[in-house]
Amino acid sequence: MTDCHEGTRSPMELYEKLTAQGDTVRALKTAKAEKAEIEAAVQLLLKLKVDYKQMTGQDYKAGCPPSENSVAPDNGPAADGVDGEDTVDPWNVSTTNAKGVDYDKLIVRFGSSKIDKELVDRIEKVSGQKPHHFLRRGIFFSHRDMHQVLDAYEKHKSFYLYTGRGPSSEAMHVGHLIPFIFTKWLQDVFDIPLVIQLTDDEKYLWKDLTLEECHRFAVENAKDIIACGFDVNKTFIFSDLDYMGASPEFYRNVVKIQKHVTFNQVKGIFGFTDSDCIGKISFPAIQAAPSFSNSFPQIFRGRKDVQCLIPCAIDQDPYFRMTRDVAPRIGYPKPALLHSTFFPALQGAQTKMSASDANSSIFLTDTPKQIKNKINKHAFSGGKDTVEEHRKYGGNPEVDVSFMYLTFFLEDDEQLEKIRQDYASGALLTGELKKILIETLQPMIAQHQERRKQVTDETVKQFMTPRPLNCNF
Amino acid sequence: MTDCHEGTRSPMELYEKLTAQGDTVRALKTAKAEKAEIEAAVQLLLKLKVDYKQMTGQDYKAGCPPSENSVAPDNGPAADGVDGEDTVDPWNVSTTNAKGVDYDKLIVRFGSSKIDKELVDRIEKVSGQKPHHFLRRGIFFSHRDMHQVLDAYEKHKSFYLYTGRGPSSEAMHVGHLIPFIFTKWLQDVFDIPLVIQLTDDEKYLWKDLTLEECHRFAVENAKDIIACGFDVNKTFIFSDLDYMGASPEFYRNVVKIQKHVTFNQVKGIFGFTDSDCIGKISFPAIQAAPSFSNSFPQIFRGRKDVQCLIPCAIDQDPYFRMTRDVAPRIGYPKPALLHSTFFPALQGAQTKMSASDANSSIFLTDTPKQIKNKINKHAFSGGKDTVEEHRKYGGNPEVDVSFMYLTFFLEDDEQLEKIRQDYASGALLTGELKKILIETLQPMIAQHQERRKQVTDETVKQFMTPRPLNCNF
Repeated sequence: MTDCHEGTRSPMELYEKLTAQGDTVRALKTAKAEKAEIEAAVQLLLKLKVDYKQMTGQDYKAGCPPSENSVAPDNGPAADGVDGEDTVDPWNVSTTNAKGVDYDKLIVRFGSSKIDKELVDRIEKVSGQKPHHFLRRGIFFSHRDMHQVLDAYEKHKSFYLYTGRGPSSEAMHVGHLIPFIFTKWLQDVFDIPLVIQLTDDEKYLWKDLTLEECHRFAVENAKDIIACGFDVNKTFIFSDLDYMGASPEFYRNVVKIQKHVTFNQVKGIFGFTDSDCIGKISFPAIQAAPSFSNSFPQIFRGRKDVQCLIPCAIDQDPYFRMTRDVAPRIGYPKPALLHSTFFPALQGAQTKMSASDANSSIFLTDTPKQIKNKINKHAFSGGKDTVEEHRKYGGNPEVDVSFMYLTFFLEDDEQLEKIRQDYASGALLTGELKKILIETLQPMIAQHQERRKQVTDETVKQFMTPRPLNCNF
Repeated sequence: MTDCHEGTRSPMELYEKLTAQGDTVRALKTAKAEKAEIEAAVQLLLKLKVDYKQMTGQDYKAGCPPSENSVAPDNGPAADGVDGEDTVDPWNVSTTNAKGVDYDKLIVRFGSSKIDKELVDRIEKVSGQKPHHFLRRGIFFSHRDMHQVLDAYEKHKSFYLYTGRGPSSEAMHVGHLIPFIFTKWLQDVFDIPLVIQLTDDEKYLWKDLTLEECHRFAVENAKDIIACGFDVNKTFIFSDLDYMGASPEFYRNVVKIQKHVTFNQVKGIFGFTDSDCIGKISFPAIQAAPSFSNSFPQIFRGRKDVQCLIPCAIDQDPYFRMTRDVAPRIGYPKPALLHSTFFPALQGAQTKMSASDANSSIFLTDTPKQIKNKINKHAFSGGKDTVEEHRKYGGNPEVDVSFMYLTFFLEDDEQLEKIRQDYASGALLTGELKKILIETLQPMIAQHQERRKQVTDETVKQFMTPRPLNCNF
């Protein structure tokens, strides 16, 4: 535990603090220390136990470190007994709340830590760069072990980034870009290598698609990802269907993980049943494997101890809770994580978007006219029914999808805040708010399309060829 | 259904015969045929239904073809309700009968077909070679679809061989050679390509071994296999840990199979439980994949329709029952099979040998002296307690392990029959019988060791490199 940041961040850290405090109390008693001193130590011990129970939902027990999967299954009954708990797992995200999922509750349920101002400031200090607006605005809101990553980075121990995408169709929407936009920023400010997994095998297993279709979607999606501006000298993009058959080291890690996870465990974490195919049941090991640096010997020269940091949407966390449970048992470091909120559907924040519903979001292939029509027609409004009422009572930016989209894509903090205030006061009408969003997205999408056009088959091949990267491992 | 061999061989063939006969009866009735003619057709239909129930344990139902996994799980309760049923699955073989497993019962339980004289004669006719003594003596005793393989071969449609081994240790014993000796004979007489899978991943999942150990055992075992005399121009030997990471086509077939098999199915076939690791649960797909020719594009140039024939011990059948169930659903031909009996342990035919017990068999590394001592000391005898009694009542070759071993390794039929008679009559004493076995095995093992010494690392590499083979696909 380092001195420069006192806040305790994970159940495991708290557990270790508790164990140490128990030792302190015992030592004081054995040494027959002053009564007041012992009492103060006991008080701290009790406070830590309360914190621990609050964080993990379990009583502290000496010798029993917390399991990351001791949290309730994501789609299981509400941990706190309240009906209407949000559902968040890799295949379903739903909530009854128009503001969207309750992310503070999710942090408690998943046992992760909040990205607080202290951590954002620290990222700024360590990277020497103004934090990305996704960090400033709480779009990336939760983490695991990010302080540890920064501690090591300050001591010149570098790390690598891992993110991914399930290529279920050719069409990607703006929401799909969130992890990639943020990952590119991390790559730039920390100057580190990045691996991007395209789980075409997963999509084949889960969807009614052929292997060929899934693989083609992977290659098409890679073009959109490359268009986000990744550095080809520091980025390796791979399709599982290709890379599994090209890297004995990757398969070895998959088998290692598969040996150390039981059906009972994946049942608890992912809700699999006996009727699920054995491909689904064993797939989590394939998403886990890139968290370990020796899955990429061409990049890390066989090193198995390079720290991995995974930026992803919070619904992917179950995979990495499992990964973090397995890691120490197979001699690898646990990956750290940065979790983002969900990008809302045009129709409202209650559900995640669907790539199969063209009106549920703005697609990367949409024309300026389509963008305009979709936003005007489908974007859920937090405004009042009439202009008069709106002027009088103001709109509700918290449930207004156009405003939500602007928090993602309008970089200027002051401008965004002014829009929020004007909309809430009624000075800004829904039509005017939508116009701002349209004028933000139209050039952004057009530029993306322009960059994507520049991505040749040759470029894709370069990114997707297993090879050394420009880094010091 | 071809005319030249009337015997019905599999539940599916019988099902098809039944369906056709049902059609015949209906057609006769519709055509208002003569009463006697209709009655004869109905009688045959009823007889076929009885046969079907006997073979599959299920009533014939139009439109519901039999599943190959409709047989009772191998280690489940006895299908016929009799206690003391033999246990036969890929990890356990046991029986309470000193003569060994009841193979006729196993054929009924597994739903395979007996290798009868007609089939042995046919193999002789089609290959133009005297059948191997493993065929003549019922050591390969059961099959699936072998007639179909021969039908096609006669029409100049060739096939390929697939067999394998789980490399659980460096030490192989003579029993391990049985499938390889027979496979080599098949390769020679039919002049066809062969793939040999070394399931080092399986051994890692099931045993307390590291990946490195399992892979090393695979390479060591490959040397013993090569020493059986396989033609390097027609044989590809592969370790799963290597080949999975070297062939996207192999992984694609694995994923295809994994999509079409549920946990319920592998639970029924292999007896897996919720506490088993997800690696074990998904492994059967990896043993299934080499049954499909497009797992080896370098050999079959991408063709997916080349028929596969698998010679193996009967305990491996559950893997291939599963494979045969999946095959039509993913557009591939079902592999055909030839099943061998088990090679008995020196201590008796009740159990399969254990590679971890040095005294349970003759190892390929044993010296002439070790061979002599082991047989004299450990080979279970069917002789009487005293020479006098033995001379008077004779020995029992059916439970005598030395005699059993001779049925595997003494090629001369007449000599073997004479030994059997002399032992049964009491003319041949146990010590004399053991001496014959010792003198058969000592030169055989010595020659094997000599050939193994000739197998260089370079030779192993040649066999284990994915490459085209000398064949016409």
